Amino acid sequence: MTASFDFSSWPPQLTPGQLEALTLAATTYALSHGLLYLPPSNSISNTQPRIPTTAIHAPLSLFPSPFPRAQFEAARRLQSVYNVLYARVAMDTEFLDTVMGADAGVGKADEFTGTLWRGWKNIREHGVVQPLHLGLFRSDYLLHDVGDRLGLSLKQVEFNTISSSFGPLSERAAAMHRHILASTSYLSASPYLTAENFPENSTSSGLAEGLAKAHNAYGVRGARILFVVQPNERNVFDQRWLEYELLEKHEILVIRQTLAELAVSASLVPSTHALTITLPSSSSLTNQPATYEISTIYFRASYTPSDFPAPSYYDTRFLLERSRAIKCPSLPLQLAGGKKVQEALTRPGVLEHFLGNEGARWCIGARDLIAFPTNICGTWMGMWALSISEPPRTRLARREAASLVLKPQRKGGGINVYREAIPAFLDSLRAEEREAWIAMEMIETPRGVGEYLVRA
Amino acid sequence: MTASFDFSSWPPQLTPGQLEALTLAATTYALSHGLLYLPPSNSISNTQPRIPTTAIHAPLSLFPSPFPRAQFEAARRLQSVYNVLYARVAMDTEFLDTVMGADAGVGKADEFTGTLWRGWKNIREHGVVQPLHLGLFRSDYLLHDVGDRLGLSLKQVEFNTISSSFGPLSERAAAMHRHILASTSYLSASPYLTAENFPENSTSSGLAEGLAKAHNAYGVRGARILFVVQPNERNVFDQRWLEYELLEKHEILVIRQTLAELAVSASLVPSTHALTITLPSSSSLTNQPATYEISTIYFRASYTPSDFPAPSYYDTRFLLERSRAIKCPSLPLQLAGGKKVQEALTRPGVLEHFLGNEGARWCIGARDLIAFPTNICGTWMGMWALSISEPPRTRLARREAASLVLKPQRKGGGINVYREAIPAFLDSLRAEEREAWIAMEMIETPRGVGEYLVRA
Repeated sequence: MTASFDFSSWPPQLTPGQLEALTLAATTYALSHGLLYLPPSNSISNTQPRIPTTAIHAPLSLFPSPFPRAQFEAARRLQSVYNVLYARVAMDTEFLDTVMGADAGVGKADEFTGTLWRGWKNIREHGVVQPLHLGLFRSDYLLHDVGDRLGLSLKQVEFNTISSSFGPLSERAAAMHRHILASTSYLSASPYLTAENFPENSTSSGLAEGLAKAHNAYGVRGARILFVVQPNERNVFDQRWLEYELLEKHEILVIRQTLAELAVSASLVPSTHALTITLPSSSSLTNQPATYEISTIYFRASYTPSDFPAPSYYDTRFLLERSRAIKCPSLPLQLAGGKKVQEALTRPGVLEHFLGNEGARWCIGARDLIAFPTNICGTWMGMWALSISEPPRTRLARREAASLVLKPQRKGGGINVYREAIPAFLDSLRAEEREAWIAMEMIETPRGVGEYLVRA
Repeated sequence: MTASFDFSSWPPQLTPGQLEALTLAATTYALSHGLLYLPPSNSISNTQPRIPTTAIHAPLSLFPSPFPRAQFEAARRLQSVYNVLYARVAMDTEFLDTVMGADAGVGKADEFTGTLWRGWKNIREHGVVQPLHLGLFRSDYLLHDVGDRLGLSLKQVEFNTISSSFGPLSERAAAMHRHILASTSYLSASPYLTAENFPENSTSSGLAEGLAKAHNAYGVRGARILFVVQPNERNVFDQRWLEYELLEKHEILVIRQTLAELAVSASLVPSTHALTITLPSSSSLTNQPATYEISTIYFRASYTPSDFPAPSYYDTRFLLERSRAIKCPSLPLQLAGGKKVQEALTRPGVLEHFLGNEGARWCIGARDLIAFPTNICGTWMGMWALSISEPPRTRLARREAASLVLKPQRKGGGINVYREAIPAFLDSLRAEEREAWIAMEMIETPRGVGEYLVRA
């Protein structure tokens, strides 16, 4: 993509017939290749059937979206630095206590964060039995258009340390775009639609490799990996592809359980803290319950308060945390993904604290890391925490509202407060509730860029 | 599988919980891996949407079905002999005229067969421009249980020379069974459920290779393969997998058209008889119609009278036949798949006529073929044609009805007449209509064998 690319020219214009031809190729490929969701429930209780018989294609974009190659490659290069950064944050108990804790940090104002932090604090006071953590991260970016002269820059929306989804489905979306190119040449709609502009995507194998590495580090033959899932999850195929990859490439079996199921099935071996799951007799023909040791816990649930409809759900989460199984993520790694951490990293000296020292302890040498802070900082928008003790920060958010977004300590969509809605929202917050929020400058994406989005 | 296998022990008994666990593994795998149908239409007109957004898993069996290894391998070995046999039948105009023709054969009584035969006769009188035919065959067998002492034998139900479906889906069904074995060990339900009893299945690549060979033999760069499909087909994924394989492995593009669409889009270049398809402007951004030469025609329609709702549909079929494109199958190859041919082959000397002579002209030498008739005959049940001129044949069918099935010259299910229903059915037939039917001894499958069949 050249510097002169006109984003407002995207997507290419299509006639209804052309749109239909490309959409048919896209949805048929998606259905065939497991780029799928379970369909919305028809039932009042919004439950999914125990055994799925039907699927819909996942929401998809007909064209790939334009993204400058230099920024794309920068994001890939930065990822290993971000990985080290967040691993170090997760290991820095003092920092996490200060930023996320319920005594001194955002856990005071945000009950969910506070509960997780208190659970973690309690566990570490009794001694953490598993020193290894597994992180499968996803750093989300948008292009920021700062005006013609300065060009486009890569700006981070957020950094996910838990339940980072859409790896396998995005791999299939990329394959779908390559298929449409190969089968239709995208109707020659744009000179940018050429094979060398469709980057490879092999996310599934990378994610499964991470899980397999943790499993092997745990080192117990016959152990299984536990996927902690939400009840009535519709994005199951994104998870199933990891199960298939783990089985086919690594010969590792997976057990899927919700927190509610784990309340019954999970227990710790007192002497070793090994986590075991006891499944009902349906898992064997002996009509005896079967018990499996768990090497690795992969959380695709427990990232949001609604995953904990009763206090007992936290007990289950903490039971898992106390175990010797390797957690993806551990509680400190989950807390490291908080918005407040994202904001704290932007304060003077903090990034240098994490990346500038002790580099030799990590896979990237100190020399390399010291060179990186500038690049890492370059991906940040301005942000600050709202605070009781510093009213000017809230006043600033009010004054600059038109270019801001407020974000709570929560993962998932639909919970941010944007621009004009900010002042009234601030009026509605009690002072102590403000601490749960950070203000972030809006990323201004290139104007006029669009897509053909297809939903089932 | 040992000789002492007890078919009535199949499938293994499961508790409801065990059944649910295996079914969940099966349907999830099927949905993920394109073992799919389009769902039944909700509309009164029974039409499928132009762009599919949803799919259901294909009907599937939870366990693989028991089949003795010796008979399985015999079927594989015999297939190349059957391929030669039916290729020779298709080349023997005199034989086909006698057996299937509208003057002397079953085409007199069966209007559909007669119409196809007359079309073919007309074309060959004007000169056939393409000497090559492509056959993608499927020989269907059942196990015949002739009593304890004689054991099980392999018996042919029918031999399909047109629209032989379920190659790609059966490959995926086999992969699904292997997956259930790998992920659940089938709950150790049977000692027969071991990896070495799950034969490899790579049908898709074989079928696509056949189509690619025809395409390359045609030898025109940029030509495409035409799939002639039924409107509102629900078994589209079985076809799409061949398209994907042709594109990915052979870089060959496919055009899908119904006979109704071809009535508008297809034409022959007068000088060369090259078949061209002109697609509307939706296939390019130039807003000009695009014209493609066709190398190979793969018929997934035109095997049944309902594919020809008006006489003009036959005109379209014959236009395709007159073309220089390689047909899969040509009309003579389609006619060779008639039940009456299957019956005619069982008459004394006929098989020897086809396999015993001129073997050197074919891929299998004469010496090999001469050794085969016994094995080929061994796969046949007794059968005979009903005939006006030979009333004893009809009387025999009436007398032996309890062990017989009557079959017309038609492909597809639900059209045969079984056992007790035969006498009344014969009463309802006019004498000249009888010629369209053959009587065949029922294959007596092993008693008591069952399956868990799962439908969406």
